[in-house]
Amino acid sequence: MTVAGLSESELLERIFPRLNRGFGDNTALLLGPGDDAAIVAAPDGRTVVSIDTQVADQDFRLQWNNGYRTSGYDVGWKAAAQNLSDINAMGARATSMVVSLTMPPETAVAWVEDFADGLTAGIRELGAPDCAVAGGDLGRGRELAVTVAVLGTLDGREPVLRSGARPGDTLALAGTVGRAAAGLALLESGTGVGSLTGEQRALMDTQCRPWPPLAAGPLAREAGATAMMDISDGLVRDGGRMAAASRAVLNLDAAALKDLAVPLLPASKLLGTDPLAWVLGGGEDHGLLATFPAGLQLPPGFTAIGSVEAPALMNSSGVTIAGRPADTVGWDHFAD
Amino acid sequence: MTVAGLSESELLERIFPRLNRGFGDNTALLLGPGDDAAIVAAPDGRTVVSIDTQVADQDFRLQWNNGYRTSGYDVGWKAAAQNLSDINAMGARATSMVVSLTMPPETAVAWVEDFADGLTAGIRELGAPDCAVAGGDLGRGRELAVTVAVLGTLDGREPVLRSGARPGDTLALAGTVGRAAAGLALLESGTGVGSLTGEQRALMDTQCRPWPPLAAGPLAREAGATAMMDISDGLVRDGGRMAAASRAVLNLDAAALKDLAVPLLPASKLLGTDPLAWVLGGGEDHGLLATFPAGLQLPPGFTAIGSVEAPALMNSSGVTIAGRPADTVGWDHFAD
Repeated sequence: MTVAGLSESELLERIFPRLNRGFGDNTALLLGPGDDAAIVAAPDGRTVVSIDTQVADQDFRLQWNNGYRTSGYDVGWKAAAQNLSDINAMGARATSMVVSLTMPPETAVAWVEDFADGLTAGIRELGAPDCAVAGGDLGRGRELAVTVAVLGTLDGREPVLRSGARPGDTLALAGTVGRAAAGLALLESGTGVGSLTGEQRALMDTQCRPWPPLAAGPLAREAGATAMMDISDGLVRDGGRMAAASRAVLNLDAAALKDLAVPLLPASKLLGTDPLAWVLGGGEDHGLLATFPAGLQLPPGFTAIGSVEAPALMNSSGVTIAGRPADTVGWDHFAD
Repeated sequence: MTVAGLSESELLERIFPRLNRGFGDNTALLLGPGDDAAIVAAPDGRTVVSIDTQVADQDFRLQWNNGYRTSGYDVGWKAAAQNLSDINAMGARATSMVVSLTMPPETAVAWVEDFADGLTAGIRELGAPDCAVAGGDLGRGRELAVTVAVLGTLDGREPVLRSGARPGDTLALAGTVGRAAAGLALLESGTGVGSLTGEQRALMDTQCRPWPPLAAGPLAREAGATAMMDISDGLVRDGGRMAAASRAVLNLDAAALKDLAVPLLPASKLLGTDPLAWVLGGGEDHGLLATFPAGLQLPPGFTAIGSVEAPALMNSSGVTIAGRPADTVGWDHFAD
């Protein structure tokens, strides 16, 4: 059965029971779906908000070159992951999300149910069980697209911004980098999914269902992180944004980068590529980049990967590797 | 110049100055675009939230049959209008929105600038000047799509839900119904846009740039409205939702419906159609349907169009016209 065979309300009836509502006393959902808008608690008088869209054949393929078919579960999980990561990167806690799903009429109803299951699983398993799905919008289009807007609370604390990195700070990473990019390369390769090793398959899974380190954001904030952001477009590109906002230089440690490349070797050896390009340019793992005052013990989950330095000249902020300008850049949405 | 010729940050630099930031002391924007998420004030500890998507060739055509070309300004305005209307329908006040724009690479940069101008104009001219654009997402796709999530505040008051209509209440309408549907019929007709009269052109404009009555929501709440919703899918369909939520019958007054059809005559006469079908089935004007205790003087902008009655049988909620079941239904996203 396809979505063309159901009215919007019939489709909603199939989706609603599968969506996360938040649990018990911790739910922020004061009024759920069914009215013109939902109402969500903002206990400290502030709401953190972000929005993110995934489009089929642009942000993912429904059918990959290596034979893998993206499931509704994958798309739902990834929508949860990338949005929850944005809230995490502020040092905040997600309270709710609203979801808009645009589908071609030939989309199977089972695919949509699988999407709802993946969204809920992502929310729960990634560590944001209180995040309720507060509402949404279903519509038709020629291509499949998912937009999520996520709301969060700072629980009375201050956010960690991109602009606070100071010369002398330690630059640290929680989660991973390059795995999703390595996984993308595997998905687009001619090597059939069935012949991948377990390690290679795990890299592919990071592209399809990333695991941002959701506990790390609030831990970093409590530990005194001076700046923080999630890596969605690559270490060098996103690091450059933090450097620019902080008017500083982020100097990456060459040995640390080599360590980050090790888990990518099962893919780079198969494909004959340089894993360092994935470490420096790959986004979508949604690892967390943060800076901490020098000498501070890093919170659990963080590894030092460099340091913050004063720019040599005014306006010469940027990212360096062992002191030399990094020119590998992540993927850009428009320029090719 | 097309968006394919610019990086995402270059495009954002062209859009940001055109977006509404809220004014002076009334802005709810505590942290604007540029970090992983924005921060918006929620002064009474609650945030009202809704999400809505428009897709080209589904929710509007870039090029209509009658020769009219939808501008970026139109799409931006309509995105503002339909989202602000959802907040209004709760009796709330919009504080901010986040915007996701998906564009084919051949989209003109000027079109995107025009979109931003229309979004800002809609926010200001419709009467929500404090509503700041807090952030967004730009991406590529094969078809143009716009998703807005809007946040609002109840300013310490209670929301007006769909479920509160009680037998004996007066059913009232603020704003218009059927104009956008009449305008849609004109846009899809063979009559060239250049040969339309001023009145016909004004109906077309309601489809392209609707004017939801934003002041009416809070006024209705203060006056003691028992139930409220915006009409986006048609009077009978949306009225049916209010009736179901309230377990009541909404009985429309036949004379009132005829009055509502009068402004549509310039289109119905040209096209040889029944204007009552637009009154009963047309959404997208985003008029406001509300119920008030009997005998209460209706707040400014509202006109009585019927009454709330007890259902004859259990579970027989619905919409009637002069006591007889209304079977004209509005447009549904999936079922044809």
